[in-house]
Amino acid sequence: MVEHGYHGTSVRDVAERAGMSAAALYHHFPSKQVLLFTIMDRGMDDLIRRSEEACAAAPDDPAEQLQALVRVHVLRHMEHQRESFLGNSELRSLDEPGRSTILAKRDRQMRLFYRVVQEGVQRGQFRTRFPTEAARGIVTMCTAVATWYREAGPLSAQEIAHRYAEIALAMVGQR
Amino acid sequence: MVEHGYHGTSVRDVAERAGMSAAALYHHFPSKQVLLFTIMDRGMDDLIRRSEEACAAAPDDPAEQLQALVRVHVLRHMEHQRESFLGNSELRSLDEPGRSTILAKRDRQMRLFYRVVQEGVQRGQFRTRFPTEAARGIVTMCTAVATWYREAGPLSAQEIAHRYAEIALAMVGQR
Repeated sequence: MVEHGYHGTSVRDVAERAGMSAAALYHHFPSKQVLLFTIMDRGMDDLIRRSEEACAAAPDDPAEQLQALVRVHVLRHMEHQRESFLGNSELRSLDEPGRSTILAKRDRQMRLFYRVVQEGVQRGQFRTRFPTEAARGIVTMCTAVATWYREAGPLSAQEIAHRYAEIALAMVGQR
Repeated sequence: MVEHGYHGTSVRDVAERAGMSAAALYHHFPSKQVLLFTIMDRGMDDLIRRSEEACAAAPDDPAEQLQALVRVHVLRHMEHQRESFLGNSELRSLDEPGRSTILAKRDRQMRLFYRVVQEGVQRGQFRTRFPTEAARGIVTMCTAVATWYREAGPLSAQEIAHRYAEIALAMVGQR
């Protein structure tokens, strides 16, 4: 699906690549639609779980929490580049109510960032005039890491996550 | 192609939507491949031309030039959301040498941002420790505007471009 798109891929193609029969794949996923939804849904659940855990484990400090969120978001998108590509390119192919379910989960992930940025502004730690746009800018630049990251690149995944966390603090105007 | 993907769309489908015969469409574009390449290539040429013009028209000041680049990039991606989606989702479907041509043009657009950020750092106006990542972060968050912008939203396109320009200055640590 990543190579040819949802409409250019059959369940038979997926089964072949997975080294199993179409019948065996249908046993787990009754349709191509369920397969696509499951990939996106599990991915979002994992991202949200890890983000919430990282946020909860961080000190009661918006700067620390924002950095924790950024690191999780960036690292997960480097670890799951193909899934991220599919999530962005094939949301169109998802039928309702699956589509709304995924959009609601994305919204929940976005709100984690909003909330932390808003909290930092209220405590006077972040001085951005545009917290909503800054939060969205942070999430989208972190998601986009999946589009350019190469394991063979000059920086490690951890180092990229570290730099993005620092850039995110600049974006919200940390004092 | 935006709705069903390159592989899920025939030249006949495109011709039908355009209200012309497949023969007439083939007269302009000898293949679906040429059609896809032309959409991406014209889009990149327009983006680069507008970016270079805006940069040249701005004062000799990295902060002004960075803001000008951001505004053009954001506004063009709000004006051409479907083209942007296609550019990101169907780069995979482009044969060589077209693929390399588009990647080189993306690289050229990215370098406009790198150069301005680097110049600001050298002049001591921007104090980011990570100019390369900041520049890439700026471009990717601006490109992503195409994925969420809605004309009916609360902010005008101009206002969003203005806010993103200010956030970009924060990202590079403008003094």
